[in-house]
Amino acid sequence: MTLETTVAAIRPADEQAMAAARELQARLTKPAGSLGDLEPLSVRLAGLAGACPPPLPEPAAVAVFAGDHGVHAQRVSPWPQEVTAQMVANFQAGGAVVNAFARQVGASVTVVNVGVATPLDGNPALVRRGTRDMTVEPALTREEARAAVDAGIRTAERLIADGAQCLITGDMGIANTTPAAALIAVFTGSSAAATTGRGTGIDDATHAHKITVIEAALALHSPAADDPLGVLAAVGGLEHAALAGFILGAAAHRVPVIVDGVIAASGALAAAAFAPDAVAAMVAGHRSAEPGATIALAHLGLTPLLDLGMRLGEGSGAVLALPVVAAAVRVLHEVATFDSAGVSEK
Amino acid sequence: MTLETTVAAIRPADEQAMAAARELQARLTKPAGSLGDLEPLSVRLAGLAGACPPPLPEPAAVAVFAGDHGVHAQRVSPWPQEVTAQMVANFQAGGAVVNAFARQVGASVTVVNVGVATPLDGNPALVRRGTRDMTVEPALTREEARAAVDAGIRTAERLIADGAQCLITGDMGIANTTPAAALIAVFTGSSAAATTGRGTGIDDATHAHKITVIEAALALHSPAADDPLGVLAAVGGLEHAALAGFILGAAAHRVPVIVDGVIAASGALAAAAFAPDAVAAMVAGHRSAEPGATIALAHLGLTPLLDLGMRLGEGSGAVLALPVVAAAVRVLHEVATFDSAGVSEK
Repeated sequence: MTLETTVAAIRPADEQAMAAARELQARLTKPAGSLGDLEPLSVRLAGLAGACPPPLPEPAAVAVFAGDHGVHAQRVSPWPQEVTAQMVANFQAGGAVVNAFARQVGASVTVVNVGVATPLDGNPALVRRGTRDMTVEPALTREEARAAVDAGIRTAERLIADGAQCLITGDMGIANTTPAAALIAVFTGSSAAATTGRGTGIDDATHAHKITVIEAALALHSPAADDPLGVLAAVGGLEHAALAGFILGAAAHRVPVIVDGVIAASGALAAAAFAPDAVAAMVAGHRSAEPGATIALAHLGLTPLLDLGMRLGEGSGAVLALPVVAAAVRVLHEVATFDSAGVSEK
Repeated sequence: MTLETTVAAIRPADEQAMAAARELQARLTKPAGSLGDLEPLSVRLAGLAGACPPPLPEPAAVAVFAGDHGVHAQRVSPWPQEVTAQMVANFQAGGAVVNAFARQVGASVTVVNVGVATPLDGNPALVRRGTRDMTVEPALTREEARAAVDAGIRTAERLIADGAQCLITGDMGIANTTPAAALIAVFTGSSAAATTGRGTGIDDATHAHKITVIEAALALHSPAADDPLGVLAAVGGLEHAALAGFILGAAAHRVPVIVDGVIAASGALAAAAFAPDAVAAMVAGHRSAEPGATIALAHLGLTPLLDLGMRLGEGSGAVLALPVVAAAVRVLHEVATFDSAGVSEK
């Protein structure tokens, strides 16, 4: 589907299925509320699916969207840009953390070269080899931003057609926390100082410099939050735009999508700007150590499931949340009721 | 093994294996520290196993220790005592939450009737049918408390002999948060008011009453924290004592044990009182909503992996943490190094 038809296909959560899930939770053999955050999660997923119980979120598929960033020239990261391509090779060889975590939980990993700067043999960049430097000019044209969103939608549709019952966001791109912090500042109305973190672990001077770089880009473009394609073009990244499309694709097909860290959260904000009801499909996998992630999740009204101080990206935190999401749904499928098990109530 | 030989077999963590794990973490293809709490967890498990990498914690086995409580007569819980036996039947039929969660993560569930009041067909209570009312007399004799600890040790040994690479604590017993709060007060030197929570969800009046019941029992027995068998006998429960033994058995065999909520945490405090080095084997699965659990984990120096507002018991929170524990170990087995993957460093 195109961006427009995808957005048009996204519907609000089904209130009737949510009511049925709440009613079922109350009859299961456990004290009311004793499963904490898993109970409202199960209700939300029933609302998304329009069914109680909703389908188990397995098999799950991780898509790792990879791209490079013109703003890397502003020295916002201590890592060389070539690492993006090297890590793509690492993902494809199965040697990265996200691969190990995906094997742990039985998820597949697909790598999508939406915009890596280094040419990759037999795997050309779908849109362009890296963005432009947003401190000098828009990172992307509107057409390029749309093409990246479309690539994300197509990836979601392909994985769902192949049987995925849950999508998981992944990303790779040296310097990509810089556009993520810029996007989060625009979509939430926060300052760059609030949304900018230390990424892979930069020092105080680089952190202060990174904030001024983002402030300069925002001042240059003055992006309008109600024009998500314009925001993605001005200060976004190719993987950020693709993640927005990926999330919209999941929402259009009423399939849950587990959102990883700060890059994914910035894409989720863009997705919600395109289609507010897309939030019903989002599950916040974890609370990244990056401050922008917390700001973005709060803006979306999402409570992260895990809080392990992780800040790797790749989809690693979201993958770890999959068994929790599956367990929340499994309760509605498999746990006995007080009646069926002959257990007395208080 | 007996309690004494089990305690004698527990050794400190292996510093050399921990150093090797730290050194390996630094060479893996990810920014240093980016896996947050998973990195020190992998180091601890290397120290426990005395090997880097340590074995994957799978297959894992949950043991649900069930018992009843004389203090139930003091109206500390709104649930009838018969629910303990009914839930044992539910566990055995596979219909409880812990069963569903264990299926999700591929763990086995074993139910151990250490002291259910209601006679169970073909499954007699291993020690006695329920404790005595601790507000009137000691809940157990020292011999009974020791027999319950021994039952926990034997359970751990049997599950490990059957191939378990990780143990998970589970519990069932109507009113068992009352002895748990008493045990945590004694072992941590906290007040009953601080350690006592709302269990399955009691009202303000019952909560205030529950605190006075625990204060009365503590005043009657004045248990000494350096005599863990005496503490378990005075104000403990059969499943609490068995959990202490279960944890000691895991530690003696250098197998990790994922500690669930407030009942398990009180057993973990008793295990640490018997053998301080047993803490090296403990992984805090989650932060229960019960306040005593947080006090106990802090006293043990353990950081919970999950914090989902759960307060069910049964082992449910600990089971959900298993994939996180396994993922932390899997990183040391499977993730490529910068050298092996040809990834540049910063």
